[in-house]
Amino acid sequence: MSTSTQSSGVFFNAHHAPVGAFATFTLGERGPRGGLGLELGGPANESLFIGAESADGSGYEALPFFANSADAALRYDVSAGTQAAPGLVRPFADTALARDFALATDTWRAGDLTFTVYSAPKPVPDPARASAAALKTALVPAVFAELTLDNRHGTGARTVFFGYEGSNPFASMRRLDADARGKFTGIGQGVNTAIVSDSPGVRSGQGFTLDQILRPDREENLTFGLGGTAALLATVPAGKRRTFRFAICFHREGIVTSGVPARYYYTRFFPSLESVATYALASFDTQRALALAADRRLSAAKLSDDQRFQLAHAVRSYFGSTEFLLTAADEPLWAVNEGEYRMLNTFDLTVDHLFYELRQNPWVVRNQLDWFSRRYAYTDTVRLPGDTRDYPGGLSFTHDMGVANCFSRPRHSSYEKFGLHGCFSHMTHEQLVNWVCCAVSYTRHTSDRAWLKKNLPTFRACLRSLVNRDHPDPRQRDGVMSADSSRCLGGAEITTYDSLDTSLGQARNNLYLAVKTWAAYLGLREVFASTKLAAPAALATRQAGLAAATIARHLNAEGYIPAILGEGNTSRIIPAIEGLVFPQQWGLDDALAPDGPYAGLLAALRTHLDTVFVPGVCLFADGGWKLSSTNDNSWLSKIYLCQFVAPAVFARPADPRADAAHRAWLLDPRNTYFAWSDQMVSGEAKGSKYYPRGVTAWLWLDSVFD
Amino acid sequence: MSTSTQSSGVFFNAHHAPVGAFATFTLGERGPRGGLGLELGGPANESLFIGAESADGSGYEALPFFANSADAALRYDVSAGTQAAPGLVRPFADTALARDFALATDTWRAGDLTFTVYSAPKPVPDPARASAAALKTALVPAVFAELTLDNRHGTGARTVFFGYEGSNPFASMRRLDADARGKFTGIGQGVNTAIVSDSPGVRSGQGFTLDQILRPDREENLTFGLGGTAALLATVPAGKRRTFRFAICFHREGIVTSGVPARYYYTRFFPSLESVATYALASFDTQRALALAADRRLSAAKLSDDQRFQLAHAVRSYFGSTEFLLTAADEPLWAVNEGEYRMLNTFDLTVDHLFYELRQNPWVVRNQLDWFSRRYAYTDTVRLPGDTRDYPGGLSFTHDMGVANCFSRPRHSSYEKFGLHGCFSHMTHEQLVNWVCCAVSYTRHTSDRAWLKKNLPTFRACLRSLVNRDHPDPRQRDGVMSADSSRCLGGAEITTYDSLDTSLGQARNNLYLAVKTWAAYLGLREVFASTKLAAPAALATRQAGLAAATIARHLNAEGYIPAILGEGNTSRIIPAIEGLVFPQQWGLDDALAPDGPYAGLLAALRTHLDTVFVPGVCLFADGGWKLSSTNDNSWLSKIYLCQFVAPAVFARPADPRADAAHRAWLLDPRNTYFAWSDQMVSGEAKGSKYYPRGVTAWLWLDSVFD
Repeated sequence: MSTSTQSSGVFFNAHHAPVGAFATFTLGERGPRGGLGLELGGPANESLFIGAESADGSGYEALPFFANSADAALRYDVSAGTQAAPGLVRPFADTALARDFALATDTWRAGDLTFTVYSAPKPVPDPARASAAALKTALVPAVFAELTLDNRHGTGARTVFFGYEGSNPFASMRRLDADARGKFTGIGQGVNTAIVSDSPGVRSGQGFTLDQILRPDREENLTFGLGGTAALLATVPAGKRRTFRFAICFHREGIVTSGVPARYYYTRFFPSLESVATYALASFDTQRALALAADRRLSAAKLSDDQRFQLAHAVRSYFGSTEFLLTAADEPLWAVNEGEYRMLNTFDLTVDHLFYELRQNPWVVRNQLDWFSRRYAYTDTVRLPGDTRDYPGGLSFTHDMGVANCFSRPRHSSYEKFGLHGCFSHMTHEQLVNWVCCAVSYTRHTSDRAWLKKNLPTFRACLRSLVNRDHPDPRQRDGVMSADSSRCLGGAEITTYDSLDTSLGQARNNLYLAVKTWAAYLGLREVFASTKLAAPAALATRQAGLAAATIARHLNAEGYIPAILGEGNTSRIIPAIEGLVFPQQWGLDDALAPDGPYAGLLAALRTHLDTVFVPGVCLFADGGWKLSSTNDNSWLSKIYLCQFVAPAVFARPADPRADAAHRAWLLDPRNTYFAWSDQMVSGEAKGSKYYPRGVTAWLWLDSVFD
Repeated sequence: MSTSTQSSGVFFNAHHAPVGAFATFTLGERGPRGGLGLELGGPANESLFIGAESADGSGYEALPFFANSADAALRYDVSAGTQAAPGLVRPFADTALARDFALATDTWRAGDLTFTVYSAPKPVPDPARASAAALKTALVPAVFAELTLDNRHGTGARTVFFGYEGSNPFASMRRLDADARGKFTGIGQGVNTAIVSDSPGVRSGQGFTLDQILRPDREENLTFGLGGTAALLATVPAGKRRTFRFAICFHREGIVTSGVPARYYYTRFFPSLESVATYALASFDTQRALALAADRRLSAAKLSDDQRFQLAHAVRSYFGSTEFLLTAADEPLWAVNEGEYRMLNTFDLTVDHLFYELRQNPWVVRNQLDWFSRRYAYTDTVRLPGDTRDYPGGLSFTHDMGVANCFSRPRHSSYEKFGLHGCFSHMTHEQLVNWVCCAVSYTRHTSDRAWLKKNLPTFRACLRSLVNRDHPDPRQRDGVMSADSSRCLGGAEITTYDSLDTSLGQARNNLYLAVKTWAAYLGLREVFASTKLAAPAALATRQAGLAAATIARHLNAEGYIPAILGEGNTSRIIPAIEGLVFPQQWGLDDALAPDGPYAGLLAALRTHLDTVFVPGVCLFADGGWKLSSTNDNSWLSKIYLCQFVAPAVFARPADPRADAAHRAWLLDPRNTYFAWSDQMVSGEAKGSKYYPRGVTAWLWLDSVFD
């Protein structure tokens, strides 16, 4: 597949998603490669029909998101001959298309046709405090669209259309008019997805093919229930410009998850697809205004176009992965699906989503932390390399809470296996650090003292657990992880960078994890200091000092700190600085001061950074960031995070060439089908596709409006 | 695809389905072509793993219903190299396999392994009268299986396994053990399908591939939640023979239909997949006994093997299409899906399912009739050919109630279009006759006088409507349809034989429909006579006489009655006799007596039959029945019906060669994927695949145990 220079950057799938519905209207890639997706790990691969009768009346033109359907009539009428496909609809020429892609709007222009999707990145108010009205505005499982045809220069009336050919295997397409009780016109598939409109003059049609809907033998046959394609239609008279409004709606009733049986939270307010449609259309103006306001906010930010593009794209993918549930016991449960993998609340993603979530809806961080400590915590023992004895370990948390709507059993993730050294091993130390970093971030951001007090035993257990993992012998502690969880059964823990080599993948003595662990100790110190718990505060302070000193000590003569401390490793990694984001976000300016208590650590990291940012080391040829000198697998979410840390902590100037490279990766035709993806191997999305994690870019806005 | 002579007749998909759950465990076709299907129009196309460790310990052998999965680990660990597939499991050789296929059991034997599925064709008691216990026994959405390994001659312990790789796009595979609270062991996909066991020693495993489950690096990793394959495992020690029990469970919560919002009736008793599993295992003995009893009953019937095979196969496919719902207004709604097309309660199938349903659960016929008269009735006017004036018409009923869980709007089917002459046109006259035939059948079978009285206005309206369709001018009436519904907008009505040529497809003056209409008049006369309504009884009698005379008059010099009366048509059709089934079933011996009031009609039809049963006319070269002399499309459901009528009414001897041919059609490798199919074009299933309608064969049992 290739794309012309002209259209480069136009054809890429993007999410247009409500929040918490695990639903997305995905479009942008050519062909039947987007659509109305519900609970999927990738695009729905449906034909979308968005277009208008051509001005010369010779046929119809549509945005290029469809394939011509076979005429399914042949399945029924086996004696009939093959019918020639009339092919009334042709895609607009690539060169005729322009796309204006923003955070909350996505506008396509082709000739005198304009199509805009509105999907505001709405915060979700705390359900314990919010009014039903506020929750409904936020949670309505719908996104919005306008289709405009400017026929002021036209000589004849022209039909516009917006429809799809659904891919849900369990139900047929249908018209919703009979169930709409006059409130709207609609088409949909089963009880799960629909496109509806209350604009005057919009009518619905269904047929085996779009052609049969656009040119029905009789208008009455637009009601044909067996048709696998359905569309909304309207007519724009000659000399007129008309805009039609649509809501693209999603709904799934009942218990949708196992393990922790739960339904979508929105079902509290919306018992059916039709109720979603009615509400969505009634609130169209509000929702459109929210989207436009979000766009204005991002436009006002001092970001480059390349940054703005990536931020918008990443946030959209995060929204498409969100799933807000209400358990059978009536407890709210916030979940984010892990893109193509659909793991639920992968903790090492949670800690990256954190910055966005705290600014938008901090209660979801609390909610995730509570679920981790209630159901997905465990206590282990630990082992030292080459030593089969078990030493005291302590509390930690699972990698995730399950996968694809199946919550895993208590105290276990879906991901972590036993007895491994690489991918799928346990992440005990990392997730322990992640709980601490998330919890400290939550308490500092919200000043929720009640939650802090309630969780003090957990904080204390976390500290004890961290210290035990440093070394069983207090005299040998250096602030850095030395012991692997006994859950590894003799294997070794890994980090979130599971598919990279040792440079980032091994947890023990890992530089990335060591800096993050130092941050966790700083956070714990703040927690205990604020609660006047002198002894644990002192222990945390001591451990932070040990960690800082250990890390700094490993700065070598070549000016970098090896990715694995003290094991002869020579990999150079950018995420050495990743953990600095926490003291920075917590406002611990003293800890980050060049002349503060951790001056040695900071100086070492500054030197490290200067050393590694060299082409062929931690820079690709195109200027893109290469997280590890020994691996071509680079993760955009983590790049975004480090792109925030480098200027914020080290006043390192931004590098526009890197942003341009990263944008180009996302727009590479090999990658555009997957919307925003994370794991880029030399610029090609090889894993973590259709992924939420890039919302780390939200940090870029910090200097602008936070 | 070809099949050896040895294995011919072994590899064909068959349904193993509970009743009313629109669910099926389909297996028998080689490859990943069966599985646990829910609400599908065809097999689920999942790999099923059913097998055992080979006696020599060299690997594993399984029934050939799987493909080796790719190792999905590569999706996660993008830096890992390609892993060679170990391929521990090989399919049993075709020649090693034997299958014993019966009505309610399906047994596969391969070496010392035996696998049996139990799925009794259970009647559904009337929910208005039945106990919860009786309803639960009938409706539990599960089928049952036993796996036996005879390792008495074995020298080592051997593992047996039963698992699958689910194809539901919305949820992952999982182990159910944590949710089973010690009651069972299970594997499943999301909240919808599962295989569970409470046999001692059965354990569950999950992995990317079956190999990873059979030979896990560590037993602990059998819990791996990301695995797309899951299986139950057990070990049979050397020298032992062990049998393990399984329940194959289905569940779908919440409103599943649109138009008429409804949930599965079974959700009254079973709120979750786990509750299905628990109940199913507890009732295993009962369910197994029901299956064995059903098999004994069919074995006792005086049927040939070819007949017995077709009856069992057809009944199974009917069960897989049944969907018993409870509306949001708490009304029971019985639906049968139309096989691959999934139309709901297609009325011209209902009238064929009737004979089975009356014998098993007559209340479902009443339920369907009530839904047709409440929601899917309409009143039209009629037109004569070449005449654009509207004449009085009357009451009729829609072709169906919707499609694929979408109930159509009131007074309209999903199928019927406007302004057509062929496939997808209206079936107004046919469905009117079908309501009458079903309603009379119900009242005569049940003696439900209350329902009869309540529906007298409908019966009267039906008579009026039938007469109006005969001819607007009373003097020109001849008992046969002459006027098409104005819903055709100038087009013409068709019959259920929509994909055949005029011989069976055109409704007006159609011989098949004329005989059925004559039967409807007879039935109406009985209804009115029994309710002492003399005038309508007389009118019905008169119309029956007119119809009989008209039909008989068209017997031509060549000894057949043309398929279309009086229009120069020369097609010869077997379904001329189809309508005779109704007076036969109603016990109207007088009407069928060779010397009775309709002697002329019966004599004409007997002559017609003798004429058409000639090779090349209404017999294929293989001896199979060819419904129409002018079309190679022949429908097994209707053949079965006429195979009952010919001996029952005309004492025409059965023709074993035909039964052998029809069985061979079903077992043709081109057709075996679709389980039982209806529309056979020269023996190839071209339409109406995976279809319920062959349950007409239940009539064959009439002489045996009714």
